[in-house]
Amino acid sequence: MFFEGSEKKANIIIDVKQLSLLDDIADDFWLALVQCCNAKILSTIENDDCKAFLLSESSLFVWHDRLLILTCGNTRLVHSVEYFIQHMGMNKILQITYQRKNEYFAHAQLSSFGDDIALLRQHVDGKAFRFGELDGHHNYIFHQDNSFQVSGEDKSYELIAYQICQKASKKLTTVGLKSHEIRKFLQLDRLLAGFILDDFVFEPFGYSINAIKGMQYLTIHITPQANSSYVSIQANINLIALAPEFLTILAPKSIDILSFNEFEFSELTQQYIPQEYISKSLFQQHLSNNDLVCFANYIQPQTIFSQAELLDIQGQRHAL
Amino acid sequence: MFFEGSEKKANIIIDVKQLSLLDDIADDFWLALVQCCNAKILSTIENDDCKAFLLSESSLFVWHDRLLILTCGNTRLVHSVEYFIQHMGMNKILQITYQRKNEYFAHAQLSSFGDDIALLRQHVDGKAFRFGELDGHHNYIFHQDNSFQVSGEDKSYELIAYQICQKASKKLTTVGLKSHEIRKFLQLDRLLAGFILDDFVFEPFGYSINAIKGMQYLTIHITPQANSSYVSIQANINLIALAPEFLTILAPKSIDILSFNEFEFSELTQQYIPQEYISKSLFQQHLSNNDLVCFANYIQPQTIFSQAELLDIQGQRHAL
Repeated sequence: MFFEGSEKKANIIIDVKQLSLLDDIADDFWLALVQCCNAKILSTIENDDCKAFLLSESSLFVWHDRLLILTCGNTRLVHSVEYFIQHMGMNKILQITYQRKNEYFAHAQLSSFGDDIALLRQHVDGKAFRFGELDGHHNYIFHQDNSFQVSGEDKSYELIAYQICQKASKKLTTVGLKSHEIRKFLQLDRLLAGFILDDFVFEPFGYSINAIKGMQYLTIHITPQANSSYVSIQANINLIALAPEFLTILAPKSIDILSFNEFEFSELTQQYIPQEYISKSLFQQHLSNNDLVCFANYIQPQTIFSQAELLDIQGQRHAL
Repeated sequence: MFFEGSEKKANIIIDVKQLSLLDDIADDFWLALVQCCNAKILSTIENDDCKAFLLSESSLFVWHDRLLILTCGNTRLVHSVEYFIQHMGMNKILQITYQRKNEYFAHAQLSSFGDDIALLRQHVDGKAFRFGELDGHHNYIFHQDNSFQVSGEDKSYELIAYQICQKASKKLTTVGLKSHEIRKFLQLDRLLAGFILDDFVFEPFGYSINAIKGMQYLTIHITPQANSSYVSIQANINLIALAPEFLTILAPKSIDILSFNEFEFSELTQQYIPQEYISKSLFQQHLSNNDLVCFANYIQPQTIFSQAELLDIQGQRHAL
């Protein structure tokens, strides 16, 4: 059994002069929106600035003038974006970005990035880019191409850990593990002091948490299975500075860092990414919507032979 | 437009006491066999020990007691293997191995490795392994699990170059390039002195060459398109020792080395792989058919930002 941890992600900014505040919209709308990609709402937290929905496949955050949705597994997030466009009207939308990563099991996905943007382009003029090599980790980013300019203050970060160490994978696949044990293992109560937290432990394993504090958010989604492990940490607080904390606990073989509008990307990665990680990919692009996107993939060099993985009859990893 | 360079590969060893020599079989049989995976025979060379067919998608080599077939693109090589089994009978087959790599465009393939071995396992008891991380370069290898033991003398090698340098990609995508120009660029007349050569330049670009000398073979298949470039060099002569020659010309960002029964793998890679390449993956397994398989993936660390790739409406690279 495998689970595709890697997420699709959409950001939409609306014109609040033309539309009521997004976080005033009744939950039924969001319920229908997430249903479009076959996800469900598990729980909700909110503060004055933000409403955060924990989904059966990842997360939805809604602020006054924008939303962020990420969904993993075999969801077709683009259908949720289409639902939003059809119900709100493109004239009230200032900017859409749609993003997708390399997948562990690309052949099992219901669509490719190309399929998704062909659909989006029926509604939105936009440009698409790939950050990273096709034969390695990469991010596809599509953005609406209009006169809207994203503020340089709109910073966001992704820290993705692949192939976490055996100790972390074993801990996070423990049968009957409780959410407070995972919070403790990841030291989240300390790292996210002052945040409202909402988390969920999946069967047979897997963990999601949403955290909000004012306008700030941080969300973690864990697919802990050895050999296809994927830990996604996404936030609008500086995750490069937090990287050492997470890397110490997870000790992944490979990490991706993606940032929007972090102008000190090189200095920060140099300061905070441990020396044992070597930069395999390094991409940067200033998009015409004014987003500065930086992407880096790091690996830990291997000097000792590992054993090959014995596979079962479906070509998947033998059960533990 | 994209082309999937990465190959599927099958090795079959037969019992010559029960069957006439494979290379005595009429070409009609091989024509039908390669048709099963939608490939065609373009040309043939032979010597006393080996017949080598250049295919529309890669190569077929036939010796007295064995065959090696590799096919790229969207071929379903497993159907050719099934054809061989059905026409020869499993009782005359001593050993089958079937191999598949990570693909650039896995979502565009007609089957996954899991699908392929599910089909093979209807005819053959076997074991399957993955060499390499799921989120990086890897090789799947399925082998028949019987009493047959492969000889330690049966050495073979693969040297795969990904993301070749701009200069090499540009040269190899030159319109109207002739085969003798490619041989000269790769210095093949010098490196393959004494071999019988058979090569083909594809439209719009792409190049294949088969080379044989006694029992020895070497075959090269080039998909030169920038960003999905793939140069596969496969042989039963020592490609690790030849690696510096090819790496100087192609300067790829990443290379894979795979060997069967090379007992000096560590020493050879240490001696011949240039220092600028860092070992990202290193896997070794002694299979129950006595094959010792080693796999390594190397990368060139990146320290300078590259620009993201602008994609066209299908999510593919913009035309040159």
